[in-house]
Parts: sequence; C-alpha cells; structure tokens
Amino acid sequence: MPNRPNTASTRYELLARELEQQITAGVLRPGDRLPSVRQACTSRGLSPSTVFQAYYLLESRGMVRAVPRSGYFVAARTGGALLPEPQTSQPQSASQPVELNDLIYACLGTTRSRNIVPLGSAFPSPTLFPLDRLRRALISSMRRLDPWRMAGDLPPGNLQLKREIAKRYLRQGFAVATDEIVLTHGAMEALNLCLNAVARPGDAVVVESPTFYVALQALQRLGLRAIEVPTHVREGIDLGRLAQVIELYRPKACWLMTTFQNPLGSLMPEAKKRDLVDLLARHDLPLIEDDVYAELYEGNTAPLPAKAYDRRGLVLHCSSFSKCLAPGYRIGWAAPGRWALEVQRLKLMTSLSGSIPVQAALAEYLQEGGYDRHLRGLRQSLQAQRDSLFDAVTRLFPDGTRMVRPAGGYFVWVELPGGVDAMVLHRAALAQRISLAPGPMFSARAEFQHHIRLTCGQPWDATLERATRTLAQLVDDAPRTAALVQPLI
Amino acid sequence: MPNRPNTASTRYELLARELEQQITAGVLRPGDRLPSVRQACTSRGLSPSTVFQAYYLLESRGMVRAVPRSGYFVAARTGGALLPEPQTSQPQSASQPVELNDLIYACLGTTRSRNIVPLGSAFPSPTLFPLDRLRRALISSMRRLDPWRMAGDLPPGNLQLKREIAKRYLRQGFAVATDEIVLTHGAMEALNLCLNAVARPGDAVVVESPTFYVALQALQRLGLRAIEVPTHVREGIDLGRLAQVIELYRPKACWLMTTFQNPLGSLMPEAKKRDLVDLLARHDLPLIEDDVYAELYEGNTAPLPAKAYDRRGLVLHCSSFSKCLAPGYRIGWAAPGRWALEVQRLKLMTSLSGSIPVQAALAEYLQEGGYDRHLRGLRQSLQAQRDSLFDAVTRLFPDGTRMVRPAGGYFVWVELPGGVDAMVLHRAALAQRISLAPGPMFSARAEFQHHIRLTCGQPWDATLERATRTLAQLVDDAPRTAALVQPLI
Repeated sequence: MPNRPNTASTRYELLARELEQQITAGVLRPGDRLPSVRQACTSRGLSPSTVFQAYYLLESRGMVRAVPRSGYFVAARTGGALLPEPQTSQPQSASQPVELNDLIYACLGTTRSRNIVPLGSAFPSPTLFPLDRLRRALISSMRRLDPWRMAGDLPPGNLQLKREIAKRYLRQGFAVATDEIVLTHGAMEALNLCLNAVARPGDAVVVESPTFYVALQALQRLGLRAIEVPTHVREGIDLGRLAQVIELYRPKACWLMTTFQNPLGSLMPEAKKRDLVDLLARHDLPLIEDDVYAELYEGNTAPLPAKAYDRRGLVLHCSSFSKCLAPGYRIGWAAPGRWALEVQRLKLMTSLSGSIPVQAALAEYLQEGGYDRHLRGLRQSLQAQRDSLFDAVTRLFPDGTRMVRPAGGYFVWVELPGGVDAMVLHRAALAQRISLAPGPMFSARAEFQHHIRLTCGQPWDATLERATRTLAQLVDDAPRTAALVQPLI
Repeated sequence: MPNRPNTASTRYELLARELEQQITAGVLRPGDRLPSVRQACTSRGLSPSTVFQAYYLLESRGMVRAVPRSGYFVAARTGGALLPEPQTSQPQSASQPVELNDLIYACLGTTRSRNIVPLGSAFPSPTLFPLDRLRRALISSMRRLDPWRMAGDLPPGNLQLKREIAKRYLRQGFAVATDEIVLTHGAMEALNLCLNAVARPGDAVVVESPTFYVALQALQRLGLRAIEVPTHVREGIDLGRLAQVIELYRPKACWLMTTFQNPLGSLMPEAKKRDLVDLLARHDLPLIEDDVYAELYEGNTAPLPAKAYDRRGLVLHCSSFSKCLAPGYRIGWAAPGRWALEVQRLKLMTSLSGSIPVQAALAEYLQEGGYDRHLRGLRQSLQAQRDSLFDAVTRLFPDGTRMVRPAGGYFVWVELPGGVDAMVLHRAALAQRISLAPGPMFSARAEFQHHIRLTCGQPWDATLERATRTLAQLVDDAPRTAALVQPLI
C-alpha cells in the first residue's frame, strides 16, 4: 500500500479533532448523528476516504459508533464523567402478603395525557413501530380471511402465528413446540395465567427488588405472598440470596425479568442464567420469565432467555409483540413448559381466545419477513434514545445522582442524591407537566423512596432535553431529607 | 266495499287448506318459508289478495307467522303434539367447593372439527353475521386511525365504542354511564373480572342449576364455593329457594343468566326480575348478570335485564358482541355498578387493555347504524332455526322426551326418556360425527345425567335433519338405566 501523503493524514486528524471538541463541548451529544460522509465531503471539500479515516479514528477512541445503514452516532460517555452505580437493594426478603395502595394506579393515570412529557410512561412512542405496514397486513389478511375461521380459530388461536413464534425460538437456537405456545392478550395476560397455574392462595413467590409493579398486583389479586430478593442493577437477582430464601420460605415460584429488567434495565449474564436454571431445577421450582424486552438488545446477538437452558419444563416463558412491533394489538404468548395444558385451560376459561383479525394480521406481517429489518431499526433508535437520556441525566442532574446505562430496553433507573424523596419529586414534576415513575411503585413495601424510573421510549428532542433539565432543577431544589446511609447488609 | 264473489272466498280457503295439509303432513315444516305471494300468484294463477287472504287465515290459526320483509314461515307446533316440559332441577343447594374433572374440556374439544355436525357447539354459524361489513369497517377505521391512539387508547379503551354501548342501554330505557363501562376480551373476561371483584377465596356464590360451565370454571379457579339453586326451564331461578340459601349460607354473590339462560333457554319474566333485584337489595348481595343472549329475543321488544331495575349499583351487567355481531373479535364489556373502579383495576392488572384495531372497527360499524337491521335479520334466522330444531326433536325423538321451546337464544334443553345416559349418548353420537353438550357439563356435581343441550346456531338443512334423526335413533337404541323417579323435593 502506498504511503499516504502527510497532508491527507493531517486533514483527517484535523477533522477528527474538530468533531472531538464538539462532542466534548456538548455541541454534539450522545445519540446525535455525525454528518453523513457525503455531507462532510461536500461541506469541507474532503475526499470520502479522509472523512472515513476521521470517523474510524473517533470510533477507535470510543467516541462514536457506526450503525449499519444509518451512519455514525456520538457514543454514550464513558470514563471519568460516569455517575456511580445505584446501590443494590437490601430488602427484608421475608415472605409477606402484598397489600398495595392506590399509588400505582395514581402514577399510571398521570402518564396518559399527550400534554405531559412521558418520562414516566411504560409505553414507547407509536412512531417507533411499522404501523402502516401492520395496517396493510391487517387489511390484506381481512380480505383473505375465511369467515369460518372467525369461529373455528377460537380456542386454539391462529396456528400460523404460533408457528411464526416457534420459528423465532428456533432461530435463537432452542426449540419450543408450536403446541406449547398459548396465545394471550399481551404478555400481561400470559404472566397472570402462568402465575395462576403454579401458585395457590397463600403460597409465596420470589420477585426481584425492585420489581415490575404488575407482578405485585398479580400476587395481591391471587392472594399470594411476595419474597423480594436483592437485585443488582447490571446483573439481575442475587443468586446466593435466592438460594437462601428458597431454603427458608419454600416459595412456589419465581417471577423474574432476566433480560432488561423493568425498572432496573439489568441483563443477567448468560452463565448466571444457566446457574439460575440449575438452582431452580434442584428445587423443582418454576420460573415465570417475563421476557418482553428481549428483542431490544445492543450489538448483533440476542441475549438468550433462561428458557433456553431449561431441560425440565420449569420455565414458563412469557413475551409479546407490544414492546417491539404492535403496541395496540395486544398480542402476547406464553410457552409454559410442563404447565402448557394448565395455562391453555386457564386461558380458555378466563377469556376464551384472542381476537382473530389482529392475530391473522400479525401472522401475515411476520410471514412477509420485514420484522427483522424493523427490529434492527428499532434497536438503533432505542440505543440512540438511551444514549441521549443517559447523557442528559449525567450532564444535568446534581452530584450524588447514581445511574448505570442499561444495555437494552426502555428504562433507566436513577438513584436521587441526598435522600431526595421520589414522591415529592413526582408531584413537583407533574406540576411542570412531566411524568416519571417513582421508586415506591416497584416494591411491595413502598421502598425505593429515593429512586425514579425514566423512560427513553421517545425519540430525543428539545422537549425531552428541556424536561430533563427541569427535573434536574427540581432535584436540586428538593428538600434533602437525610444523607443516605449505606445499609449494613 | 263490494261483496267478494263466492268463488274467490273458495279459492283462498282452498289454498289455505292445501297448505295446511302440507304442514300437517310434514311436507312443509316449522321454519320453512311459504312461497312468496308473487310466486303463489304466478304458479296458481291467483290474485295477490287471494293469496294474502289464505296466508292471513293460516296466521290466524297459528300455523304460519309473518316475518317483516321476509315473508311467511311455518310456525312451530303447538297443542297436542307438544312434548312435556323437563322437570325442574332439585340440586342439593349446599355450599360446596367446585372440583371439575376433564369432562368440560373433553366435550369442548369435540365441537371444533368442521366435519362434525355441531349440535353441541357453543358457537353459532359465521354465516349469520355481517362479516363483510365488519371487515369493511375494520379496513376503513384502520385507514383513519391516528397512530397515537395505538398507545393512547390503552388502559381506557375506545371511548366511542363505550359511548355506543351506553347509547344502547339508554334506548332500552335505562342509563349506564360511559365511565361505568369496562371494555373486555369478550363477556367471559368481564364475568371473570366481576367475580374476582366481589368474592374472595372460600366465599360462596349462587349459580343456577343447571348453570353455564364457565361459571363453574371461574368458581373453581378463584377457590370459591358453589350453591346450585333449582331453576325453572321457562322462568329461571327459584326465588323462594334463593331466599332460603341466602339466609342459610350467606353467599357473597349470585352469577345468573336472567335472559335465555345457557343451557335452559329460560327467560325470567320482568316482574320476577324486579323481585330478584329487590331480594338481593335486601341482602346487599351483588348479582353478576351474564346477558350475552339479550338481543336474541322474539317479537318487537327486548327483554330488560335485571340491571334495568337496579337502583343500588348491585348488578354487574356483562355482555358482548360475540353472540350477535362479531364472534371472532372478542369484544365484550362489564357495567359493574358500584364495583366499576375495582373491575377497571382488575382489567388493568390482568390484561391491560383490549385490542385497539378491533375496538375501533366495531365503534365504526355501530356508528354507521346498520346494527339494528342486522339484529332483526339475525332474530328471524334464529327464530326459524329454533322452530326447525324444536320441530325435529318433537317429530323424531322417542316418547318420554321432555323439552320446551325457548323464546330466544341458541339452545334447546332436552330431557332424555327413560333414564338414557347423556354421556353414553354423547359418545355414540361422536362416533357418528355429531356433537352435543351432555348435561353433566352444567353442574358442579355432574348432575343432569339424562339431559343434553342442543344448539340451533346453524341454518337448518338436510345435514342437521339427518343428524337429529340419527340422534333420535341413538336415544331409542340406548340402554335405559332406570325409569326416572320423580324426586321428593
């Protein structure tokens, strides 16, 4: 290869240095797209190879990242500027009945208005989904739908849709029989039916701490007891503690999100997932695995669920298309392992069947084969949105704030500095027309009083930047109840 | 008015007599349509007024009935040929836990194949429904649907659809607030959520005897006890016995079908519905009213539900569009009176929300205003189908068979003669590719061993006639276990 002339090397280094300064100064922020190579060539009179070299250099320094078919984006900050991690929860881990107050409903009620900046919403922006293509699939499947299937598909549900789901398991490298799959009204129904199948009133069930409030509601509704187990903000539930509470309280099931947990965003490493399955197998203990965020990973390889390691039919795997494809369609499923027949029957006796038209539409969409392309785009959008939110909180929130950047999903878990009360912040934010999810929603005993969950389900824009700035100001202004004391285990 | 010549009077009487003979001989059967006036004029060289006079004469004798915009149909047999009524059930009416075996699932599984004559199916023929117009409404509503509603309509559900439901209550003469209405996945979810809202594990709930098996499944799933109360085949649950069991067992709720009960087809008279509501009000006892067949009446006036007489918010009224408009869409609702907020919350925590596209489609269809026209046609079809099935059983089943013709809905309840075992008949019929619903499905203790439920959800044809004849032959051939002993109360 001929030596490049010195001037060219200077040019790409100059461009790289200039962009680096803009990133450091915050002109270009995490999640922002760099100018396209063509734009940079035109505006600066450079050759494409010069621009590429500059971008490669920035990539090698971890300052930008390439997104196939989309371009180069400013990467999330790492290194010195990073906030410390939130501390791992230290719940009491006793087996206790669940008695929730109105907090969860009140908080959920605040996220509905379009005039509120939805940092507390559990729903991503509809603009992230291929609503037009889904609509076309619905129209075309309705044109072709045999009227007899309107009644004939009741009970079992759309077989083609089950096959498409089974094929997606297979592509991940493990088999789930089409017959095992029970179609449900979203993952929420799947989770509720699975819980109903494995536990009787009075039984204890292990959940994470913090945990998704729907798990707590389900436990309360079915008269079950909760055992909240410490959960690491990056690596999920503490297996040592889990082993102890199994011995101590003899729970009848675990309800966990092993991949991109809500609210933490934690991703249990694969080896740990295998250890988890082994531990549960030793006690013949079923795992209800809520896996709705599994498709929202970074990089090129989907994290495997615990279900992938299950050899004994103990994992009741629940997922849906609501977070990654079709939010309003309400189509989910359970692959309940050895409880498949029981869950099928519970489905039959509680809501009979799913809605035939939307099941047919989704089956048609999946057969057309555009789903993986959509998912790649969605993952990129979410990665940029996580970067932007993470960066904004890092820049704007006061000292003492703790947070890690999750590797997938929609949520960022933030520990507020100096004992700021999440409920006080929640109310102050609402007065400014900003929603957030206060920590006490995620605990049977309203713990996490100094934590909030923020959602990055919306494309980042000036409104979100402004709202995050306002939140940061409210945190700064809030009364500091006490310096947080490090718990003594 | 000039006197009509004698010959004309002879002509219409001759025509009437001829038709009467055909009806008596079974050439024309209940549910069959008479030739149109135009056809009769052309084929016999008569004037329209002569044909009309003949038809009026037959109508005055109760042999045919006029159906607006459809013509004249042979009426169901009355008088001497009628079978005796099935005896009113005499269940033990103790409060007892529900422990169902696999019978219900096994029976439900037999009705799915298209190769089986569906006399046991709970699903009516899809040909009875305006599937094309619904499909057009779905397509047009999807074209116009604001993508934000895909997420924004979650939790509350489609407001326009709730308004259309509220308007239908209002047209019946009583008000249900739009806010009270909770949209659900079919009536089955509504019923389950309502039951969950009013009773805790261990509580007792009153049901009819026989009762819809879904009620029994729901009681079992929630750990509730059942009190089965005698129910009259035409007039519904025995209020005297109900008053006794309320005093005796202090149930926490009743789950009843006051209009066209499944499986009996009984219709509680309005005065009795008022008495029922008064009785429950005296004990502050909630009534879960399963009213899915309400639209399928005969004549011009819809029977009012018990809900219409409720002044204290005690009636949780549940219904759906599955039996009268859109079977595969799975859209139902609850109007849960004073438990509205509780049922809303249970909905939120068990399946979040309905499917947005199908809700929007149904709202659009209802706004277009063709629903009442469809219902008029559906009622006429069902009336003819009930006539045909009732007539066929009357003609073909052996002596000792008991049955009444229900005034609405899809089902006919048949008491088999001489102790013929319904399960034996069920298995023999299946071997001939005919399904039926054996009586033991409708009781917590597998009573009604000599009863079957037949469905008239399909337009009557030679296949159904043949199947009924086969069933009758199987009844005739079946071993007669014992003469039925009249219970001593």
